[in-house]
Amino acid sequence: MSQSINIALIGATGNVGEALVELLEERDFPVKDLHLLASSESAGQSLSFRGRQVRVRSLEAFDFTQVQLAFFAAGAEVTRAYHETVLAAGCSLIDLSSALPLEQAPCVLPELGIEGLPALAKPWKVSAPTPSAVACALVLATLKPLLQPQQLQLTAMLSMSTLGRSGVQELARQTAELLNARPLEPKGVDRQVAFNVLAQVGAVDEQGHAELERRLAAEIRQLLGLPALSVAATCALVPVFFGDSLALSVQGDADIDITAVQQLLDGAQGIELVEAGDYPTAVGDAVGQDQVYVGRVRAGISDPRQLNLWIASDNVRKGAALNAVQIAELLIKHYL
Amino acid sequence: MSQSINIALIGATGNVGEALVELLEERDFPVKDLHLLASSESAGQSLSFRGRQVRVRSLEAFDFTQVQLAFFAAGAEVTRAYHETVLAAGCSLIDLSSALPLEQAPCVLPELGIEGLPALAKPWKVSAPTPSAVACALVLATLKPLLQPQQLQLTAMLSMSTLGRSGVQELARQTAELLNARPLEPKGVDRQVAFNVLAQVGAVDEQGHAELERRLAAEIRQLLGLPALSVAATCALVPVFFGDSLALSVQGDADIDITAVQQLLDGAQGIELVEAGDYPTAVGDAVGQDQVYVGRVRAGISDPRQLNLWIASDNVRKGAALNAVQIAELLIKHYL
Ligand SMILES: NC(=O)c1ccc[n+]([C@@H]2O[C@H](COP(=O)([O-])OP(=O)(O)OC[C@H]3O[C@@H](n4cnc5c(N)ncnc54)[C@H](OP(=O)(O)O)[C@@H]3O)[C@@H](O)[C@H]2O)c1
Ligand SMILES: NC(=O)c1ccc[n+]([C@@H]2O[C@H](COP(=O)([O-])OP(=O)(O)OC[C@H]3O[C@@H](n4cnc5c(N)ncnc54)[C@H](OP(=O)(O)O)[C@@H]3O)[C@@H](O)[C@H]2O)c1
Repeated sequence: MSQSINIALIGATGNVGEALVELLEERDFPVKDLHLLASSESAGQSLSFRGRQVRVRSLEAFDFTQVQLAFFAAGAEVTRAYHETVLAAGCSLIDLSSALPLEQAPCVLPELGIEGLPALAKPWKVSAPTPSAVACALVLATLKPLLQPQQLQLTAMLSMSTLGRSGVQELARQTAELLNARPLEPKGVDRQVAFNVLAQVGAVDEQGHAELERRLAAEIRQLLGLPALSVAATCALVPVFFGDSLALSVQGDADIDITAVQQLLDGAQGIELVEAGDYPTAVGDAVGQDQVYVGRVRAGISDPRQLNLWIASDNVRKGAALNAVQIAELLIKHYL
Repeated sequence: MSQSINIALIGATGNVGEALVELLEERDFPVKDLHLLASSESAGQSLSFRGRQVRVRSLEAFDFTQVQLAFFAAGAEVTRAYHETVLAAGCSLIDLSSALPLEQAPCVLPELGIEGLPALAKPWKVSAPTPSAVACALVLATLKPLLQPQQLQLTAMLSMSTLGRSGVQELARQTAELLNARPLEPKGVDRQVAFNVLAQVGAVDEQGHAELERRLAAEIRQLLGLPALSVAATCALVPVFFGDSLALSVQGDADIDITAVQQLLDGAQGIELVEAGDYPTAVGDAVGQDQVYVGRVRAGISDPRQLNLWIASDNVRKGAALNAVQIAELLIKHYL
C-alpha cells in the first residue's frame, strides 16, 4: 500500500469516531500519526490505538497543516464550520456528515472503484454516503448486469444510533422508564420512541421530505450513475440501538429472474445473502459485520417486473466508518 | 337499530376478544345474550359486560343454535375447525382470523357500505380484513374521487400484538432480559425481537411471500374493487406492543394534487389527518382510538404521480375488534 500518512479524526469520541479508530487499526491502514479531535469538553480523554493511548484534543486549536487527510464525523455543523480551514491547510477530507453538496464533494462507494468519479484535485473532498444509500447502492450495483432500475421504493427502519450516542442513550433511558412504569419525558427526540416507531428523522421541508430522505435519494442516483432514477424514501426511527433494516422495492423494465438475482448476490463483494426462506436481522446478523445482509429476495406479488428485498446493515460500521476507511484506502492509492 | 340478538364470541380471553367485549358494550350493540367462548383452559374465567360478570365457557361443548351471530377471534385453526358447525346451526359469522378464502367469505369495510358486496344468504359468513388492509383501504377509498391507484407499495411495521397475547408477553420478557444483561432464549418467535426488527411474520411460501402479505394484498384489491391492482407488501415485526405503522406509497395515473388529497383526508370518516410537518405514531396517537391516523402526506421526491403516506392504527381496535363490530352493525341491519 501507499506510504503512511498523518490523519485527523474529527468526532473521535462519537460512535462513528470510535469505530473509525478501531477500523484504522484492524485494517492496518497506513497511518503515521493519528490525531483524535472532538469538542473541548472531551479534550483530555484518550482512546487506544495500536496498543497505546492517544489523547483526544480540541478541534478548535488544531493545526491541519500537520495532516494529509481528515475524517469529518462530528455532525454537519462542524463540517460546515471547518471544511474550508482544513482544505486551506492542504488537507484532503472525507465527510461523513452529509453537510457538503454532492456536486462539490461527490459520494463514493469503494466497491464501485473510482471510474465513475470526477477526477479529484488535491486537496480533495468527498462525501461518505449515508448508511441506507451505501446498502442500497451496493446491492443495486451488484444487480446492474441483470436489472435496470426504473424506480426505487425504500422504507428505512433506522436504529437510534442514527442520532449518535445521545440517541442510543435516550432509547435505553426511555425503555427503562417505561418498564418501571415511570412517567416519560422525551429528551433529544420529540416523543416516545421506546416501543414505538417515529415516522421521520428530523424536520421535513415544505414538500414533506426529510433532508435525509432527499440526500439518500441523491446519493443513490449519483452512485448508480442514474440521475433520472425515481426514488421514494421513507426514513423512520425504530426502537433498535444499532443496525438498520431496509425494505427495498425495485421496479425493473422487464420480468425479473429471481434465481439470477440470487446468483449475483450470492458471494458478491460486501454482500451476504441469507438462504431463501430465512431472513437477516440488524441485530442478529449485520451488527459488527463488514457485509450488508440481504434476504427475502422475491418478485412482486402481482408484478413480475418488481424485485423486493430486505437488507440489514450496520449503520455505524459498513454504513459509516468502514465505508469511509475503504474510501480512504481507495483514494490514497490514486490521489495522495 | 335492529332487535337484539344472541352473540357468541370465540376467543373471548384474547386481546381482540377482550376489545370486542368492550366495544359491544361501548357502542350499545343490540346484544341479548353474550356467550364468551375460549379454550377449555380458560373456561371458568369471567369478563365484565354491562356491569355483570359473564363466565367464559369452552368452545367445544357450545351449542350454536342458541345464537344468531358468532365472532371468530381465536386463530385460523379454530375458524377452520368450527365454521361449518356454526353455519350448520343457522348462525352467521364474522371471521377475524383470515382463515376463510375471500371468495367464500368476502371481506367488508363498514365505511364502504354493502353496495360492493355480493348479496349474502342467511346464515352468512364474512371476513374482517387484516389490520393493515383496513387502514390502507380506508385511506384509498377516501381518495377514490381523486386518485386511481395503479400500484401500491406497503411496508407494514407491525406490533407484537399481531401475534396475540403471547407476542406482547414475549417482547416484554425479552426486553427485561436484555436490560438485565441476561442471556436471551426466544420463545414463540424464532429470534430476538426486542431492540430488533423481524423481516417477516410467519413462514414464507416458495415465491417468498408471507401468507399475511398475500392476504392483505387480496383484501385491498377486493375492498377497492380493483382486482388487477399491483400490490407489493412487506410485513415486518417491530418491538412495539400495540399499534401498527405503515409506510404506504401509491402510484397514480396522473400528477397528484397534494392539497386536494389533504382536503379529502381531513375530516373523512374514520380518518384523522395530522398537521403538515407533524406525523402520527402508533403509541402516541393511534392506540386506543377509533380512527386511523395519517401524516407525512407528500408526492414522490422525483415523481409527481406518486403519493406517499404514513399511517398509524390500532391493530387490535380499528384493525380488528372495532371494525368487526362495525361490520356486524352494518350487516344485521340488512341481513338479520
Ligand atoms: N451514527 C450513524 O449511524 C452515522 C452514520 C453515518 C454518518 N454519521 C455521521 O457521523 C457523524 C458522527 O455521528 P455519531 O453517531 O458518531 O455521533 P455521536 O456519537 O453523537 O458523536 C459526535 C462526535 O462529534 C463530536 N462533536 C460534536 N460537536 C463538536 C464540535 N463542536 N467540535 C468538535 N467535535 C464535536 C463529539 O465530540 P464530544 O464527545 O466532545 O461531544 C463526538 O465525538 C455525524 O455527522 C453523523 O451524521 C453517523
Ligand atoms: N392481534 C391482532 O392485531 C389481530 C388483528 C386482527 C385479527 N386478529 C385475529 O384475531 C384472533 C385473535 O387474536 P388475538 O390477538 O386476540 O390472540 P390472543 O390474544 O392470542 O387470543 C387468542 C384467543 O383464542 C382463544 N383460543 C386459542 N385456541 C383456542 C381453541 N382451540 N379453542 C377455543 N379458543 C381458543 C384463546 O383462548 P385461551 O385464552 O383459552 O387460550 C384466546 O381467547 C386471531 O385469529 C388473529 O389472527 C388479531
